[in-house]
Amino acid sequence: MSAPWVYIEDIPKIQEGEIEVRGWLFNKRSSGKIVFLIIRDGTGYIQGVATLDNFTQDQLESLEKIPIESSLIVVGDLKKEPRAPGGYELLLKSVNVVSYSEEYPIQKKDHSIDFLLERRHLWIRSRKQNAILRIRSEVVKAIRDFLDEKGFVLIDAPILTPSACEGTTTLFELDYFDLGKAYLSQSGQLYMEAACMAFGKVYCFGPAFRAEKSKTRRHLTEFWMVEPEMAFWDWQDNMRLQEELVSYIVQRVLEKRKRELEILERDTKPLEKVVPPFPRITYREAIEILKRNGQNVEYGDDFGGDEETIISSQFDRPVFIHHYPAKIKPFYMQPDPENPEEVLNNDLLAPEGYGEIIGGSQRIHDLKLLEKKLEEYNLPKEAFEWYLDLRRYGSVPHSGFGLGIERTVAWICGLKHVREAIPFPRMIYRIYP
Amino acid sequence: MSAPWVYIEDIPKIQEGEIEVRGWLFNKRSSGKIVFLIIRDGTGYIQGVATLDNFTQDQLESLEKIPIESSLIVVGDLKKEPRAPGGYELLLKSVNVVSYSEEYPIQKKDHSIDFLLERRHLWIRSRKQNAILRIRSEVVKAIRDFLDEKGFVLIDAPILTPSACEGTTTLFELDYFDLGKAYLSQSGQLYMEAACMAFGKVYCFGPAFRAEKSKTRRHLTEFWMVEPEMAFWDWQDNMRLQEELVSYIVQRVLEKRKRELEILERDTKPLEKVVPPFPRITYREAIEILKRNGQNVEYGDDFGGDEETIISSQFDRPVFIHHYPAKIKPFYMQPDPENPEEVLNNDLLAPEGYGEIIGGSQRIHDLKLLEKKLEEYNLPKEAFEWYLDLRRYGSVPHSGFGLGIERTVAWICGLKHVREAIPFPRMIYRIYP
Ligand SMILES: [Mg+2]
Ligand SMILES: [Mg+2]
Repeated sequence: MSAPWVYIEDIPKIQEGEIEVRGWLFNKRSSGKIVFLIIRDGTGYIQGVATLDNFTQDQLESLEKIPIESSLIVVGDLKKEPRAPGGYELLLKSVNVVSYSEEYPIQKKDHSIDFLLERRHLWIRSRKQNAILRIRSEVVKAIRDFLDEKGFVLIDAPILTPSACEGTTTLFELDYFDLGKAYLSQSGQLYMEAACMAFGKVYCFGPAFRAEKSKTRRHLTEFWMVEPEMAFWDWQDNMRLQEELVSYIVQRVLEKRKRELEILERDTKPLEKVVPPFPRITYREAIEILKRNGQNVEYGDDFGGDEETIISSQFDRPVFIHHYPAKIKPFYMQPDPENPEEVLNNDLLAPEGYGEIIGGSQRIHDLKLLEKKLEEYNLPKEAFEWYLDLRRYGSVPHSGFGLGIERTVAWICGLKHVREAIPFPRMIYRIYP
Repeated sequence: MSAPWVYIEDIPKIQEGEIEVRGWLFNKRSSGKIVFLIIRDGTGYIQGVATLDNFTQDQLESLEKIPIESSLIVVGDLKKEPRAPGGYELLLKSVNVVSYSEEYPIQKKDHSIDFLLERRHLWIRSRKQNAILRIRSEVVKAIRDFLDEKGFVLIDAPILTPSACEGTTTLFELDYFDLGKAYLSQSGQLYMEAACMAFGKVYCFGPAFRAEKSKTRRHLTEFWMVEPEMAFWDWQDNMRLQEELVSYIVQRVLEKRKRELEILERDTKPLEKVVPPFPRITYREAIEILKRNGQNVEYGDDFGGDEETIISSQFDRPVFIHHYPAKIKPFYMQPDPENPEEVLNNDLLAPEGYGEIIGGSQRIHDLKLLEKKLEEYNLPKEAFEWYLDLRRYGSVPHSGFGLGIERTVAWICGLKHVREAIPFPRMIYRIYP
């Protein structure tokens, strides 16, 4: 009977006996008559120990020479080893090299970010990148579980769209058969507004695209976003859902991805504080904070990354900024009935200087007001006829928001740049591999 | 104290008392001194009953006149009513119209498919479309739960790609800043091959694009696909995962979306039979079946929709077809060592004439062989350098597949055309709304 193939993350369920591990040589060292092979299989790491008990001197010498990242199938006996990272070692009985690796280009030494991005298909094998993307996977799962359990229906928004949600300057454009130009979606929001009138509570979760020439640490041309939209919910209901969701994500990662946060050396204390309620300040109060911190800003200015960093640094948990001036926000946001110059919106800034991870608002539900806004914003009414229909046939107050996945992952992982928070980042200067 | 707002699907948890429902007028009728308002809120339907107990004659007359699809907030007492579809009626105490609808364009009468697609933003409110998309949401959830529980890591593949996986003729093309042309991805497979060497078992789940000029009932230009990829798995392991996944999806929908299948009048008997093992036939056997059924086909021909319908109709559950001739399949499929003219691949055809829902294969892991194939298929080696790297640094046998969401939903729902299986379908002649 051959030993069962076990994934390294499942070893604590097996605990003892002879097992087979299939993976890659992550690292190695030898001390005289012992060769240590650190094997990774994508689910974890285990140290294999080869000694003269099971190998000849010649065999040990050839084990020593196996190049890093060669693929292996090994068989050995499990041994509890409290000092080992996973709690177990493998006393090797046989080592079969599936494929000898050529000299692996990524070394321990510091490589330039361009060198690493050019080899992203290999870089994702490294400990930190691997941990980040496993956390990303958990973040996505947490979001979907949270919304699904609350009765939200997933309604995928289209990526190919006939017109722009917020202007065409930052859109990728392509030819669509005989129907003229099509654009890659920046947001599924307008479609979610249609869908929430059909399903009550909905969300879309997919890639979004911005052909922005920004080279900041917060911008990708292709990124993922979840966008919930709720009929009959107002802007305050909206914020309550946001703080509940963000807390849920963070607590889930703390619970399920402890090992990965350790690999990243992430200080988890600030994350533990991420529980509702989050502080709420008005745009006007945010301007005051910036002025007190020596910034040269006026009511009516929009915030960039630097301003967001200053504001978010004042709080120990994510902070809502609501009631922005209407004129620096998109056409569809509901004006405050008591002060129509400001809108019933909110951004949510992550702490530790991370800045905006969510933008949300109550949407205009009145047909006449929406038509007026389209005119004010110089948007072509024809393209929005279907969107106006939502106000013709049983319109209701409704609200929603978009949460950016890469910014959220970058914050939770403590990354400097969002490019490491997505498997294959796309920026204005990078589309390979 | 005001009555609590309850979503209709949650009424069985409440059972009795005064509640508020927020929704839209789906239908109405009146018989003398009683007005029946059928209200939908996206999570279900309930009949509200207004009588002279709580309304004046004048009020009843104005209730009768509320236009279909007007938005309402109503308060009433719950009453068990076994004959009602959801088991409950609402004895109305107040009816507030939030917004009177203009005359609703979608009537009971038969509309042309173009008329309905042009109004997709409203059509999704109808009973059948609503049921289909709720089933779609459940299918997606089932797939993710299945894979996540098995330890797969979600690795999102990029949509913007620098080159073509299987040739450029069916790709959407766009300008990417100063980097030349970019293409919308047809498949995340190549990226998943990189990822499975880093994470063991991975999947991507996102939109894919084909600029094909096909007008068949099985084609969309934008569709969703899940693509698992597993290191160290061979083509037979691959098929076992596929049959387990497909069975899991179908059983989950049968369990959780009974009401929706009823609305669609779907005969569930054929679905109940979808349990492993699925029959497995070779491509050669499939050719024999076609010949016996009067088709004029020869070994080496590819199958179209008609052929798939004939083959799948021979079986009472999904059927695998494996070992296709290499020359009608993409370059990356592993040849059978015993007969290199055929590949270790499989399609999976859904029963009841539905045809292909999955394509999968073991992938070539040998560097030299892969280089030779790229040459044979006239593909530019430079574009595939990173993909070749996967065979340079610890290559292993690996396998994967892609399951098309819309085809799967169309089959489970018993739809004639995939266009109803996605919220906002994109076809060569449609990109609106
Ligand atoms: Mg903003
Ligand atoms: Mg095919």
